[in-house]
Amino acid sequence: MRARDLAETYPIVTMDTPAVEAARRLASERLSGLVVVDANGRPRCVLPATQVLRLGVPGYARDDPALARVVDEAHADVFLRELGNRTIADCQLKRDLELPVVREDDTVLEVAAMMARTRSPVIPVVDSAGAMIGAITLHRLLDRVLSR
Amino acid sequence: MRARDLAETYPIVTMDTPAVEAARRLASERLSGLVVVDANGRPRCVLPATQVLRLGVPGYARDDPALARVVDEAHADVFLRELGNRTIADCQLKRDLELPVVREDDTVLEVAAMMARTRSPVIPVVDSAGAMIGAITLHRLLDRVLSR
Repeated sequence: MRARDLAETYPIVTMDTPAVEAARRLASERLSGLVVVDANGRPRCVLPATQVLRLGVPGYARDDPALARVVDEAHADVFLRELGNRTIADCQLKRDLELPVVREDDTVLEVAAMMARTRSPVIPVVDSAGAMIGAITLHRLLDRVLSR
Repeated sequence: MRARDLAETYPIVTMDTPAVEAARRLASERLSGLVVVDANGRPRCVLPATQVLRLGVPGYARDDPALARVVDEAHADVFLRELGNRTIADCQLKRDLELPVVREDDTVLEVAAMMARTRSPVIPVVDSAGAMIGAITLHRLLDRVLSR
């Protein structure tokens, strides 16, 4: 079993994708993260769902629980308006981290090791030219290895 | 809208839960993490799904991609046997991190701020005595705030 056997079509976004659209996709498709690709379709990073949500939380509320508490319920309910016109580019992606990506001929152990090391539950699979051919989710991987 | 309005029944595990059972629950229920509770039903931590998978990946394969590559395909396919008789207690939970938990009367903004700060897509909700009454997933939260 190789990465190509596990790879499935997976939604992609770009740095220009509006944050609101990204949030809607995360919710409607029950995704745990988004694969961000560059103009050539190569994975740039995997953005955890919590980091898209982060964009919608005002800085003062994010860093200080006491300040989050003073916002009244009516305003708290509509906090996601903060997403406004922001895009994925505003997510302040950490570029120094290892890119969670595997090659199509990598084994299932290499995929699992990548997930464990990068803590990413979504791993893009690339061909020899670096183009994304799909992605493997942690649930998909577990389904396959637990059935053995 | 308060945390109690969003809280849903959520699977719990304890430190004694076998890692294989935890992996099966993650896969079959499509969970992004497990809430680990103590003997009194109080949340101790939220374990990301990738950290359960991590238990099944041999140390040498986890830390060094070159070593993961030398394992042949047949052995790689059954790597999860490494889980063996391990339990959640073997996950080496980081105790110094902030516990992702909210109180039942916290607002949706406080829940979102907790998710963003702790990067946990699952947040247990506790009553005034600290007992868990349910949990809020990132998808559930997004569903509710995006529909407004």
